[in-house]
Amino acid sequence: MKKIDLNSDMGESFGKYKLGNDEEIMKYITSANIACGFHAGDPHVLKYTIQLAKETNTAVGAHPGLPDLIGFGRRAMDVTPEELYDYCVYQIGAAQAFCAALDVSLQHVKCHGILESMTTERPELAEAIAAAVKDVDPNLLYMTIAGTRLYQTCKEAGLRVAGEAYGDRAYNEDGTLVSRKLPGSVITDAKVVVERIMQFLETGSMPTYQGGTVKVDAQSICMHGDTPGAATMIKALREQLDANEIEVVPVGTLV
Amino acid sequence: MKKIDLNSDMGESFGKYKLGNDEEIMKYITSANIACGFHAGDPHVLKYTIQLAKETNTAVGAHPGLPDLIGFGRRAMDVTPEELYDYCVYQIGAAQAFCAALDVSLQHVKCHGILESMTTERPELAEAIAAAVKDVDPNLLYMTIAGTRLYQTCKEAGLRVAGEAYGDRAYNEDGTLVSRKLPGSVITDAKVVVERIMQFLETGSMPTYQGGTVKVDAQSICMHGDTPGAATMIKALREQLDANEIEVVPVGTLV
Amino acid sequence: MKKIDLNSDMGESFGKYKLGNDEEIMKYITSANIACGFHAGDPHVLKYTIQLAKETNTAVGAHPGLPDLIGFGRRAMDVTPEELYDYCVYQIGAAQAFCAALDVSLQHVKCHGILESMTTERPELAEAIAAAVKDVDPNLLYMTIAGTRLYQTCKEAGLRVAGEAYGDRAYNEDGTLVSRKLPGSVITDAKVVVERIMQFLETGSMPTYQGGTVKVDAQSICMHGDTPGAATMIKALREQLDANEIEVVPVGTLV
Amino acid sequence: MKKIDLNSDMGESFGKYKLGNDEEIMKYITSANIACGFHAGDPHVLKYTIQLAKETNTAVGAHPGLPDLIGFGRRAMDVTPEELYDYCVYQIGAAQAFCAALDVSLQHVKCHGILESMTTERPELAEAIAAAVKDVDPNLLYMTIAGTRLYQTCKEAGLRVAGEAYGDRAYNEDGTLVSRKLPGSVITDAKVVVERIMQFLETGSMPTYQGGTVKVDAQSICMHGDTPGAATMIKALREQLDANEIEVVPVGTLV
Repeated sequence: MKKIDLNSDMGESFGKYKLGNDEEIMKYITSANIACGFHAGDPHVLKYTIQLAKETNTAVGAHPGLPDLIGFGRRAMDVTPEELYDYCVYQIGAAQAFCAALDVSLQHVKCHGILESMTTERPELAEAIAAAVKDVDPNLLYMTIAGTRLYQTCKEAGLRVAGEAYGDRAYNEDGTLVSRKLPGSVITDAKVVVERIMQFLETGSMPTYQGGTVKVDAQSICMHGDTPGAATMIKALREQLDANEIEVVPVGTLV
Repeated sequence: MKKIDLNSDMGESFGKYKLGNDEEIMKYITSANIACGFHAGDPHVLKYTIQLAKETNTAVGAHPGLPDLIGFGRRAMDVTPEELYDYCVYQIGAAQAFCAALDVSLQHVKCHGILESMTTERPELAEAIAAAVKDVDPNLLYMTIAGTRLYQTCKEAGLRVAGEAYGDRAYNEDGTLVSRKLPGSVITDAKVVVERIMQFLETGSMPTYQGGTVKVDAQSICMHGDTPGAATMIKALREQLDANEIEVVPVGTLV
Repeated sequence: MKKIDLNSDMGESFGKYKLGNDEEIMKYITSANIACGFHAGDPHVLKYTIQLAKETNTAVGAHPGLPDLIGFGRRAMDVTPEELYDYCVYQIGAAQAFCAALDVSLQHVKCHGILESMTTERPELAEAIAAAVKDVDPNLLYMTIAGTRLYQTCKEAGLRVAGEAYGDRAYNEDGTLVSRKLPGSVITDAKVVVERIMQFLETGSMPTYQGGTVKVDAQSICMHGDTPGAATMIKALREQLDANEIEVVPVGTLV
Repeated sequence: MKKIDLNSDMGESFGKYKLGNDEEIMKYITSANIACGFHAGDPHVLKYTIQLAKETNTAVGAHPGLPDLIGFGRRAMDVTPEELYDYCVYQIGAAQAFCAALDVSLQHVKCHGILESMTTERPELAEAIAAAVKDVDPNLLYMTIAGTRLYQTCKEAGLRVAGEAYGDRAYNEDGTLVSRKLPGSVITDAKVVVERIMQFLETGSMPTYQGGTVKVDAQSICMHGDTPGAATMIKALREQLDANEIEVVPVGTLV
């Protein structure tokens, strides 16, 4: 029987500001990447979201970001590796403490989007992330796209690493994601997303933007949670997986 | 042979802003209350200060504060117990993660001044602090003035609790500190501070503002680190203690 | 022909976080109290909201708050009068600059809720607010509930002051608002709100919680914009006012 | 008789954190670039510094920066032109309001270092800065290094623009500053700084790193205020200028 994890970014509300539909989405995913208060989230939201994950048997991950709430952590910043290391340790620690308080364990770490992108051109940032995770707890799993420099760096650091596939993003022939600027790069039709994921689960490959297929090494499917209709799409995917007797489980059990 | 701990607030710098003389003071104290990034400190300063503590064999404590950097966490805020609980868990977690990364253990928690004052009138805040510490790690020690509501609440919660005496603050007959607004409430003469502490260590009592003495239950002496001349005063006290064969040790070994 | 102003709090979104339905509500009100980036809002939201006000011929007001984004500025803080003065000047200035850039004028200032509440017990804070407004521009109008200490203080400082009536809040016999903690203190039935406002416009009095009426000195009706259904209620009120040939105009033309 | 302006960055303290020696340096300079609360400074510091400038007849300038207090605004951030425009308008407005309250006028705007560097590769950011200044008040003067893209863009936008020369930085043959990474790029010997400035005032040229000279178009000399010894160096320069009967005046009178 096939097994796969579903992950989504959670806990992105802040103070009076509500973002996403965590209560609904948390029912269908098995790993939650929870914002830690730098790019999104706050101590209250962090606790609430871990509590929510606990109630739905969703595994908890820390989702560190840049200290840029006004920009939602999406603007590249010229941080040093030392600064990034410190930001990661700090945020992972905050998540860990709520896990301890709520008696759940922290399964994984996955950095916020722009942080991962920044490692492509600056390998020293990938090393900073890997070192931060390892130094806080060498048993933590790191989750990212297989084949990236960050993935390799985490592997080389001796961390358990999980690869992820994007259900709602088009792939290039080389396994990278098609730029969001190109038409059709983001897939919003639930049916198409489900088909793509089913194809991946059956063949190990994803269809490419150019019309072919590309092998993807993934133990988890990442679904975005902050777009309108996200909950519906994730629910549809989960139901399809269940119907096909594919077991949806936290990624920590697969790596 | 008598034993006592010396504690001081450390790690209050932020970004480019330097505050205090941690490098010097850390040589003489045995417990450091380290700011965690809300009222002062930042991830880099937090790591640096724990590293400094490690190098000087100083025990590490988390020093949570209100989320008010512009006011240095000194302005009372009408927070709920839930908010305060979350702020404490979050900050303790951040400190813990750096301790893990630097392979030292977190000895204690001591809340920033105004937080402790706020518990006097709002016992639910004392309960929030005690619960936060206990929920993160029931082995953590809480340090505060003996006899206060917060002290009692932490005791009742089952935490190890250490009492502290203030070397540079005048006492009332009932063991409370004389308001900073009154002349002579803050003692800045190193010689007088040393005499008072020696009297306390010999008799268990501190001289009072009114001319008598008051019994003080303390395993640690708190010295402020952010005033000019603080380092000199702390050094003088430490030398006097050493000369009198009073062993200065982390409070965790005394409670 | 009777004239009245309708005001509402606007511009409370922040970064990626959207709050309220400004685009809809701005069509019906004539004065907008726009958050300035401390308790809510950010530079981009501030500009966008002033632009929106310009397009709908809504008069622009600055809505300064406490520096507490995580608490939406709703938690009382023990600020000094000097600090509050500085916060008000700073925020009014930010709003003014966008007004200059967009070629509209700043009509009024109205402080965020908790700031106004804080002046009840600390008259020096009312003086700080009045001084800040006057020092930045003595032609600015201050808007608040008539009869309050803040209202009086602004009058005495020589500012133009407008009184406001709350359409959706119950009144006590003495003209103060019924505590939100009491049942029925907040009115959510659009029909009832409209009736109350019409009664006020005809008689100068509002019905009280206790069953009588109380005289209210108001040139503006305040409607909350951040509750579900707010837009519908404000629209209904505006239509009723238009139907009754009550001219709805910016408060600056009435004081 | 020759005339020149001396400018320095001021108002960089924050809350309890003190940076620089504004009280001393303000005596010798004639234009102050005052931080506005994003990369440094806060509302209280802003008011205090403008008050200080007023007392010393120093002309006031707004010194907008990136919203990155923890990094002192020195880390390049991938902001959009719209975001930068909004940040500039917001900060200039805050400074203007305190100028109004203190009855002084805002002479100029000068963006914080990294913002100016960012315009080199992204001309749209230069346009955003120029538009922000012009839209808030077309009479404001912009101060930057002559010949840069930002200088040109401000000129083309129709703003009054002042050029500045760096007394304590080495020049390349093309008039650009030698990278801080190279030895000797920053000059810390007061005597050498004074000699260079005197040479510039006599010949219109600065000595270059490579041994030649380069023509510099400047109406103001920029001196850094945050380095140890800065006050001494600025004082020495001012005394030399006075002794040579070079009139030191605010740049607004020279452009």
